[in-house]
Amino acid sequence: MLPASWARSAGYSSPMDTSSAGSPPESVDLGYQEAVIDLLGVLAYGELSAFERLCDDAAMAPNLSDKAQIAEMACAEFGHFQLLRDRLIKLGADPEAAMQPFVAPLDAFHASTAPADWLEGLVKAYVGDNIAADFYREIANHLDKDTGQLVLSVFEDTGHSDFVVEKVRAAIAADPRVGGRLALWGRRLMGEALSQAQRVAAERDQLAGLLAGGPGRPGVDLVELSRMFTRLTEGHAKRMAALGLAS
Amino acid sequence: MLPASWARSAGYSSPMDTSSAGSPPESVDLGYQEAVIDLLGVLAYGELSAFERLCDDAAMAPNLSDKAQIAEMACAEFGHFQLLRDRLIKLGADPEAAMQPFVAPLDAFHASTAPADWLEGLVKAYVGDNIAADFYREIANHLDKDTGQLVLSVFEDTGHSDFVVEKVRAAIAADPRVGGRLALWGRRLMGEALSQAQRVAAERDQLAGLLAGGPGRPGVDLVELSRMFTRLTEGHAKRMAALGLAS
Repeated sequence: MLPASWARSAGYSSPMDTSSAGSPPESVDLGYQEAVIDLLGVLAYGELSAFERLCDDAAMAPNLSDKAQIAEMACAEFGHFQLLRDRLIKLGADPEAAMQPFVAPLDAFHASTAPADWLEGLVKAYVGDNIAADFYREIANHLDKDTGQLVLSVFEDTGHSDFVVEKVRAAIAADPRVGGRLALWGRRLMGEALSQAQRVAAERDQLAGLLAGGPGRPGVDLVELSRMFTRLTEGHAKRMAALGLAS
Repeated sequence: MLPASWARSAGYSSPMDTSSAGSPPESVDLGYQEAVIDLLGVLAYGELSAFERLCDDAAMAPNLSDKAQIAEMACAEFGHFQLLRDRLIKLGADPEAAMQPFVAPLDAFHASTAPADWLEGLVKAYVGDNIAADFYREIANHLDKDTGQLVLSVFEDTGHSDFVVEKVRAAIAADPRVGGRLALWGRRLMGEALSQAQRVAAERDQLAGLLAGGPGRPGVDLVELSRMFTRLTEGHAKRMAALGLAS
């Protein structure tokens, strides 16, 4: 997860630096600024592709009311995209350029986890989005206040989870074999998410650096990092259980 | 366009009835109420399927910024769907039941006019949505005030047209042959729209009756109906010209 090359990224200074506790200075700190733009870029493309993926799910909905529910989730993701894009513009960044490095890994994630049917789509929306939400909420703790708040607001619970939980549990109740298939699916989603996250972290030093800190700069040490992964895994297991699935 | 069977629909009373000029009475008038529910149903499913169709277009976008622009249009359509669905609920109707009769004809329209590429998608979004908007704005004149205002608000110009006009004109400037192909496409869209509208009008007496009036009830006569079609055709020609296309 931690790129060996991170130590090479000179010029980066974390907002957790004791000399600039709280918000980082508005000026200087180009390395941090670049890392934030990377972060907003990956989040923005993540939301835009979540919108597209939910559009595909909507097309598989068994009835108009379920279709509308998924379409509403899609538009909520698009609203998040707009917030992130607007922040990128405010920071003087080109949103398209900021998103571009993340198109390939995120598209690869979605291609390798294309739901075969409506239920797999629901589980992916619920499990996948919440893994992402937990992960970025962890990162939000290591950001300046403005960026941290934006990240938290983007991942605020949109209250759509209840819909998914209800539909999946009903499907398992109707046919228990569905539970086995979806449990496997949930594990695969977690595996693919971790694999793509590692790829992004390896390729985008500064982004990974938001978590890792660097020489002479306090960040997340390996103990804390391992705790973070424990929390993410526990969160995932809890959600699988809510769906009635073994994790 | 006018179903011969309309005269059979007894019990219908138009809000244009001189005895109830202005708003129709809140109570009675079950035929009118049913016609309004039909109208809101076709509009709601129209918006929901416009959302889906624009999602497909977004997937064909040549770059992320165009993709975001189309996704924004999709979410605007979904917002309209929500308004219409909420009104149906307020009227005591089941939105899904109200939309159901229009699923087949609207899906048939979209299936027969599936855009082959990004530009055809843009022209369809612009030309198709505006034909629909003009048509329903005409109908809005024959509705009670509340319903009429809702219909008008749903078809308010969302300011997305400029985007399409600019993209299509640029594509034609770059390759004039594109203009010939898209002009044919525009004519086909108009033809298919009319054909499906006729099908709906023939099958849904009360809906058609909103325009047609009935025995002893002033409505739109044939002269006014022919003027209306002239206005719709002129509007279409004007939009094709704005795109740089022969109509």
